[in-house]
Amino acid sequence: MSGYDRALTVFSPDGHLFQVEYASEAVRKGTCAVGVRGKDTVVLGVEKKSALKLQDPRTIRKIAMLDDHICMAFAGLNADARVLINKARTECQSHRLTVEDPASVEYITRHIAQIQQKYTQSGGVRPFGISTLIIGFDNKQPKLYMTEPSGIYTAWKANAIGRSSKTVREFLEKNYGEDMDDAATIKLTVKSLLEVVQTGAKNIEIAVMGSDGVVKHLQLSEVEAIVAEIEKEKEEEAEKKKMKPLASSSS
Amino acid sequence: MSGYDRALTVFSPDGHLFQVEYASEAVRKGTCAVGVRGKDTVVLGVEKKSALKLQDPRTIRKIAMLDDHICMAFAGLNADARVLINKARTECQSHRLTVEDPASVEYITRHIAQIQQKYTQSGGVRPFGISTLIIGFDNKQPKLYMTEPSGIYTAWKANAIGRSSKTVREFLEKNYGEDMDDAATIKLTVKSLLEVVQTGAKNIEIAVMGSDGVVKHLQLSEVEAIVAEIEKEKEEEAEKKKMKPLASSSS
Amino acid sequence: MSGYDRALTVFSPDGHLFQVEYASEAVRKGTCAVGVRGKDTVVLGVEKKSALKLQDPRTIRKIAMLDDHICMAFAGLNADARVLINKARTECQSHRLTVEDPASVEYITRHIAQIQQKYTQSGGVRPFGISTLIIGFDNKQPKLYMTEPSGIYTAWKANAIGRSSKTVREFLEKNYGEDMDDAATIKLTVKSLLEVVQTGAKNIEIAVMGSDGVVKHLQLSEVEAIVAEIEKEKEEEAEKKKMKPLASSSS
Amino acid sequence: MSGYDRALTVFSPDGHLFQVEYASEAVRKGTCAVGVRGKDTVVLGVEKKSALKLQDPRTIRKIAMLDDHICMAFAGLNADARVLINKARTECQSHRLTVEDPASVEYITRHIAQIQQKYTQSGGVRPFGISTLIIGFDNKQPKLYMTEPSGIYTAWKANAIGRSSKTVREFLEKNYGEDMDDAATIKLTVKSLLEVVQTGAKNIEIAVMGSDGVVKHLQLSEVEAIVAEIEKEKEEEAEKKKMKPLASSSS
Amino acid sequence: MSGYDRALTVFSPDGHLFQVEYASEAVRKGTCAVGVRGKDTVVLGVEKKSALKLQDPRTIRKIAMLDDHICMAFAGLNADARVLINKARTECQSHRLTVEDPASVEYITRHIAQIQQKYTQSGGVRPFGISTLIIGFDNKQPKLYMTEPSGIYTAWKANAIGRSSKTVREFLEKNYGEDMDDAATIKLTVKSLLEVVQTGAKNIEIAVMGSDGVVKHLQLSEVEAIVAEIEKEKEEEAEKKKMKPLASSSS
Amino acid sequence: MSGYDRALTVFSPDGHLFQVEYASEAVRKGTCAVGVRGKDTVVLGVEKKSALKLQDPRTIRKIAMLDDHICMAFAGLNADARVLINKARTECQSHRLTVEDPASVEYITRHIAQIQQKYTQSGGVRPFGISTLIIGFDNKQPKLYMTEPSGIYTAWKANAIGRSSKTVREFLEKNYGEDMDDAATIKLTVKSLLEVVQTGAKNIEIAVMGSDGVVKHLQLSEVEAIVAEIEKEKEEEAEKKKMKPLASSSS
Amino acid sequence: MSGYDRALTVFSPDGHLFQVEYASEAVRKGTCAVGVRGKDTVVLGVEKKSALKLQDPRTIRKIAMLDDHICMAFAGLNADARVLINKARTECQSHRLTVEDPASVEYITRHIAQIQQKYTQSGGVRPFGISTLIIGFDNKQPKLYMTEPSGIYTAWKANAIGRSSKTVREFLEKNYGEDMDDAATIKLTVKSLLEVVQTGAKNIEIAVMGSDGVVKHLQLSEVEAIVAEIEKEKEEEAEKKKMKPLASSSS
Repeated sequence: MSGYDRALTVFSPDGHLFQVEYASEAVRKGTCAVGVRGKDTVVLGVEKKSALKLQDPRTIRKIAMLDDHICMAFAGLNADARVLINKARTECQSHRLTVEDPASVEYITRHIAQIQQKYTQSGGVRPFGISTLIIGFDNKQPKLYMTEPSGIYTAWKANAIGRSSKTVREFLEKNYGEDMDDAATIKLTVKSLLEVVQTGAKNIEIAVMGSDGVVKHLQLSEVEAIVAEIEKEKEEEAEKKKMKPLASSSS
Repeated sequence: MSGYDRALTVFSPDGHLFQVEYASEAVRKGTCAVGVRGKDTVVLGVEKKSALKLQDPRTIRKIAMLDDHICMAFAGLNADARVLINKARTECQSHRLTVEDPASVEYITRHIAQIQQKYTQSGGVRPFGISTLIIGFDNKQPKLYMTEPSGIYTAWKANAIGRSSKTVREFLEKNYGEDMDDAATIKLTVKSLLEVVQTGAKNIEIAVMGSDGVVKHLQLSEVEAIVAEIEKEKEEEAEKKKMKPLASSSS
Repeated sequence: MSGYDRALTVFSPDGHLFQVEYASEAVRKGTCAVGVRGKDTVVLGVEKKSALKLQDPRTIRKIAMLDDHICMAFAGLNADARVLINKARTECQSHRLTVEDPASVEYITRHIAQIQQKYTQSGGVRPFGISTLIIGFDNKQPKLYMTEPSGIYTAWKANAIGRSSKTVREFLEKNYGEDMDDAATIKLTVKSLLEVVQTGAKNIEIAVMGSDGVVKHLQLSEVEAIVAEIEKEKEEEAEKKKMKPLASSSS
Repeated sequence: MSGYDRALTVFSPDGHLFQVEYASEAVRKGTCAVGVRGKDTVVLGVEKKSALKLQDPRTIRKIAMLDDHICMAFAGLNADARVLINKARTECQSHRLTVEDPASVEYITRHIAQIQQKYTQSGGVRPFGISTLIIGFDNKQPKLYMTEPSGIYTAWKANAIGRSSKTVREFLEKNYGEDMDDAATIKLTVKSLLEVVQTGAKNIEIAVMGSDGVVKHLQLSEVEAIVAEIEKEKEEEAEKKKMKPLASSSS
Repeated sequence: MSGYDRALTVFSPDGHLFQVEYASEAVRKGTCAVGVRGKDTVVLGVEKKSALKLQDPRTIRKIAMLDDHICMAFAGLNADARVLINKARTECQSHRLTVEDPASVEYITRHIAQIQQKYTQSGGVRPFGISTLIIGFDNKQPKLYMTEPSGIYTAWKANAIGRSSKTVREFLEKNYGEDMDDAATIKLTVKSLLEVVQTGAKNIEIAVMGSDGVVKHLQLSEVEAIVAEIEKEKEEEAEKKKMKPLASSSS
Repeated sequence: MSGYDRALTVFSPDGHLFQVEYASEAVRKGTCAVGVRGKDTVVLGVEKKSALKLQDPRTIRKIAMLDDHICMAFAGLNADARVLINKARTECQSHRLTVEDPASVEYITRHIAQIQQKYTQSGGVRPFGISTLIIGFDNKQPKLYMTEPSGIYTAWKANAIGRSSKTVREFLEKNYGEDMDDAATIKLTVKSLLEVVQTGAKNIEIAVMGSDGVVKHLQLSEVEAIVAEIEKEKEEEAEKKKMKPLASSSS
Repeated sequence: MSGYDRALTVFSPDGHLFQVEYASEAVRKGTCAVGVRGKDTVVLGVEKKSALKLQDPRTIRKIAMLDDHICMAFAGLNADARVLINKARTECQSHRLTVEDPASVEYITRHIAQIQQKYTQSGGVRPFGISTLIIGFDNKQPKLYMTEPSGIYTAWKANAIGRSSKTVREFLEKNYGEDMDDAATIKLTVKSLLEVVQTGAKNIEIAVMGSDGVVKHLQLSEVEAIVAEIEKEKEEEAEKKKMKPLASSSS
């Protein structure tokens, strides 16, 4: 089977594009990112790589603004992400100039996804080694999109990308509730990240976008408070379970 | 035989273009799509991938409008489809501007097919990993076209692409009736999809275009009603068969 | 010898261009097409692929008009043919605009052949996987041309391309008559196709161009009538042979 | 030694360009062409491929006019020849427009040879698989040039290319006479072709250019007459030899 | 696994870009460079290759000004560094012209990192074999950035690149203090370099940027004085340790 | 060692460019050419390939005028030489137009050499398979230059290229005299060629350029006279040697 | 490890660029060149290849003027050097035109080095197979620069490139003196070359640039005088050593 996987723009006999799959492997090696859509909020949470002691955490952020009202998290190769972010920002600016209106979240998601697709079909380039989660409000509705190295984009109520994303997605599926308010949305985001982040609040970063389109980055203390609350609840729950040990499996 | 199948634009000694055949394999791995042409209607039905629980089904739709009056379903690589859809939409717009008339269904089908062919003959690119079904009305006649990764396009009364398309096509051949009205056309579409979709109405999406060129997407409840009706008929038929078990093979 | 046959624009040590020969293999896999030049008529006949039951036969036609007065049949890859047909049509239109006269049949044949040659000599592309038969009237004389994947074009009284073309060509050589009228020309075309088409009139398509340059596509009933006539004659002939069994070999 | 011969523009360790030599092999596979320069005439003769019965011999001609006063024969790949002929014709026209004088035979020969050389040195293309013989009058002197796949061009009194050209050239060397008149020049051309063409006049085509630069294609009957004359002479000679059998080897 | 590592723009099955990793190996072979951010100062220190006796040390400097107020050190391939430095300088000049303001340190860092990324994704080029440390003041705050062959850039309080950078980084982590004044910042820089430079002051080069954005290169005598001071302290510390040998491990 | 020698623009581990060396091999296969600089003359002599009997010797000449006052001989691939000659002629014309003065011999030599170098360093082309000898007068001084496939050019009093050039060069070294007059210069040229040409005057071509820059091609009779003279001298010398057999080795 | 060294722009796993290293091998095969910077002088000395007897030594010079005031020597492939020299000369002229001032020595050195770097990073070309020594005066200070195939450039008091450059460099390190006057600088240059040139003055070429920027090429007699002087000194020294044989090793 040697050869199919190395050549850039070639199908394998069973219809696979191996380079796209290997790029997804680079995504799976990246830190975890989570997006959760609430009633009037949409939240991004990312696992902060345990920064080296002297590193300025600001430049290893995996959350970036694409425009005043659109925010993106990513998993995978940082340098590739920066390129896509730049291209997206340029498109946002150009959209404002041409159409005299900010781009919609879906518009810019589609734009990013198309760039990613192009790098899977033409010769001389490799696919982008990143997946993205993009949030914002279109027509006053909170939106959460994901794009993948293949160039596929999809909309979600909640989803995760990067390391252990499967585990986190399953957690989200079990715990997502419709019409969650701000607090519930943020809490679910943190809670889901704790599935994969062992080291607590200090390795978690949270960005919250309200219906006004303004993004607020939570302070470490705020995240710590939420983590503490979650742990307390877990303990209480564990306590309860101890008392009625067989009930949990039926929920 | 090594080498012929990996090189993009090369014939094998027996006249095959392996990359085109491998791209068709990617199509066969995609979800099933069905098109059926009635008397005054033309219907597209697609198998909806059992969406992940939190996924917004709208972005994984495999039915897209190319223009106000032309609708397309596809099977294969989603990201490739988006690129073709974009190119087709641009051509539709450009046609309206240049010719001051909307493009005909055949015109846009030919345009899509030519793009697909080009990607099988030139160096540096791979074929598109999708087949399409395109519907609309030309000269007040319902039209159903199919395009394939090779760049071939053909017109049909009814056809299927993607997973198990062979089974579905055979079903359509047995059950297609000339001059079907709206209801019969829709019902045949649903029925044929049920050959491959085990999970009923919730994984079926139906788009109906009337002679006014307007596309209507059926509600889940509407699809459920049709599925229920079909199942009821099947039961009745099974009932009948039990009574005269040998008659069925002669129909 | 590995390597010579895969590389696009390379001679083998004994002076072969393998890719061109492999493309011819793709032609030999295509359905059969026949062209016959009569006194005042020129006729194209093609084997219609046993269309799937629900397929609209119009889009799988292997006969296409290049201009009002020039008609082409082909054998080989359908999608490749469409590209050549489009290029030829554009050239015809452009010729009318520039020279203010329709292109001659030979002119457009040469144009098509040159495109085919170019794809055998330059890097990055593969040869076209089709042969063509082109008919029309130049200076009131009926013309029949053939082009091949190598870019060679030749003029013929009658010839066949595609599946079993050798058998059909030999049949034509034995049965061609000078100064055939319309009916005889059409009959010879159908008769020669019956050498390879086992399934009779329904898989045969006939296009007849008269000296007025107008192309008429025969109705199924018309083809059926001719097939019936031919079969009747054959029977009569077989009858005769039975009576004088040794005479046939001397004709 | 594998590799040197497949790569387009690469020398082998002993200074060979294998692709050029393989292209010459394609020439040696082509039908034979002969050129002979007389006192006031220059003649081209070609072996006509035993045309298939229904083929129109005009399109398989291996003699072509490049301009009113320059005529070319070739051996090798027909489709390649057409491309070179077209390029040469364009150059002739362009020369007339720019310089207001027809191009000289040597000028156009050099032009063709340079195109052929270019295809042996640049990447992405293969050499032309043809040799040419080019005739005409420069300064009222008859001229005969040959070009080869390498891009070499040379002037000759008489020469042959294609199948068995070595045998024919040796025949020409033995039989060429200075100051031959029209008849003698034509006769030598036919005679030399008969060395390789076993099937007589019907497979021989002759083009004669007089000092007025006008090319005359001999009728089959004219060629037949010459062939008959030659055969008669041969018989007479054989007769003579029988009488003085040992004298011939000393001539 | 052969093949993944040689091809320029290709992912390995586990999502690696080997060429980027090999370029990092070229960085690890380069001399060591250190950057330390103090309260009002930011300092670059580099290991000077033990210059050949007659070499002019100025041209082997690994510290370069990108603009009046931005300074860069690098580790890896010298010639690659010059190219990046030139591109950065041009961008700085162009920024001044376009925006009528000097570029910020982050802006120019991002610019350099993007160039580095581009060389990891496009065909026909190799990644840059260098990492950089970039210093300056943005909004009166001292800044220290690092870029890597992958195109990643990050901000730091202190960091090291090149030979033994891991050892030096660990030293910095242990000894970095917040709010260090000029002297402390410079001393830490020198001290950390002494971890890898065995030959003392003569192989150390120090560039100090104060809050006025002016860079001062320390004289050899100044560096010697600092080295002497450091050695004296070490001796004293060693002395102390001898007296209370077990206390050190608890600090 | 496979691979280094086939790739166009690649050094071998020991610093060789094999393609250039193989091109030189093509030169060594070519016929011999000699250049000799006298006091007021500069002479080119070439071995004429034993022309086929009917070949017009003019087109296989290996001596060509680049401009009125510059003359070139070459050894190696004829078709490559024509290309270089054309490029040189164009440059000569362009120089006259731009500078309003003919190009100097050195200028045009440098121009040719640079073209040859370019074809050894860039991808997609092979080196030119020829060496050249270029003669003319710069500032009233006779000049003799040589260029090689590598793109090196050098000036000489006398030199040889092509077949057996080493033998001829050694002969020239032994017999070259300063301040030779016309006759002596021509005679040395012929004499040196006779070292490699066994067949005498008929395979030797001589071009003589006097201080007026006019090139004179010697008649066969003139060459024959010189050859005769040389042979007579040789005989006389042989005669002398016989008489004092041991003296010769001391001269 | 095969493959890393042949591919043009690829790192090996341990961070090497083999093509650059092989190009350096071509430099090490070239003749030796030496540069020495004195107080008010800077001198280039080169080993003259033992010219063939009839070669005009002027065109094999390895010292070239880049501008009136900048002089260069090189080691490696002659033809590559010519290309770089031409590019440098053009840049010098263009600098004069644009800036209305001659280029500085460092400017032109940087320019040459950048061209050399570019040929190590982009596809389709090989590195330049030369190193250079460049001399001149910047701000009235004598300058000596070296560039290498990698594109590195460095400044030196004295250095050597090409054959045995290591030996010569070590000699220079032992014998270089600060503030050498013209005579001492020239003598050291000659002396260091004698380390590698066995054949004395006739194979040595010396170019001396004084503070007026004018380059003087020494006459053979001048070089001979210096060589004689050096030999005399050596003899005297040898004489001394004989008398106190053990003292020499302690110097």
